[in-house]
Amino acid sequence: MLETEGDVEKAMGFLRRLGLATAQKAGKRMAGEGIVEAYVHHNGKIGALVELNCETDFVARTDEFKRIGYDLAMQVAAASPQFVTEEEIPVDSELDPQEVCLLLQPFIKEPGRTVGEVITEAIARTGENIKVRRFSRFELGS
Amino acid sequence: MLETEGDVEKAMGFLRRLGLATAQKAGKRMAGEGIVEAYVHHNGKIGALVELNCETDFVARTDEFKRIGYDLAMQVAAASPQFVTEEEIPVDSELDPQEVCLLLQPFIKEPGRTVGEVITEAIARTGENIKVRRFSRFELGS
Repeated sequence: MLETEGDVEKAMGFLRRLGLATAQKAGKRMAGEGIVEAYVHHNGKIGALVELNCETDFVARTDEFKRIGYDLAMQVAAASPQFVTEEEIPVDSELDPQEVCLLLQPFIKEPGRTVGEVITEAIARTGENIKVRRFSRFELGS
Repeated sequence: MLETEGDVEKAMGFLRRLGLATAQKAGKRMAGEGIVEAYVHHNGKIGALVELNCETDFVARTDEFKRIGYDLAMQVAAASPQFVTEEEIPVDSELDPQEVCLLLQPFIKEPGRTVGEVITEAIARTGENIKVRRFSRFELGS
């Protein structure tokens, strides 16, 4: 049987939809496990702390999950979000959601995707609900 | 000239008073430099971020200053203080200051001294004002 480009594209589309369906389903489940990760910029003047939740300690202990936690702490240090999600922005605020919400910011390691998209893909890959619960950011003198 | 134990004791007392006098003087000066340090417990479930201020970037870059910052982040992770100083405890609160204030807690690496005493000694040694400006502590599921 000859595999055409069209077939590959169809299969990719199927997998993508399957992944997103998994992510949507997982997104409703409880995420009570997870990790706390920290990042301090090499000059020692900016640091961030992130709590990233998932459903099982099994996933929490994987290198991939830890890397996402570390990347998010680096994102917070570099891009100074003020909120995790858009829902947290005070009503009537004139803040630009894409600037101040972690999940809407372009992912610093790959600016073609948002942080939210990176997390949705991790949900699809692990099959577990993954949530950024909170973050904290300190910058010297601010 | 024979040095007696009494002389050594006197000299030690003099140096101690000199150090504390230096510390008291330094304690009134502006501390606008410093570092941000982080600590994450090896199980990945507890993390802390600390901003430690001093007067010059020269002192901020020393290994001793960085070690104090790291030790304080570890202290915050392990001993869960809620405030830096006693002054921050709300009036009429029934909290035990020695339990909830970072500076009044026994230093986990050397419980015979308080965290505040460790910092006062660092002030005397460096000749600079040193202050814990703020900290943040995340514990999974709390």
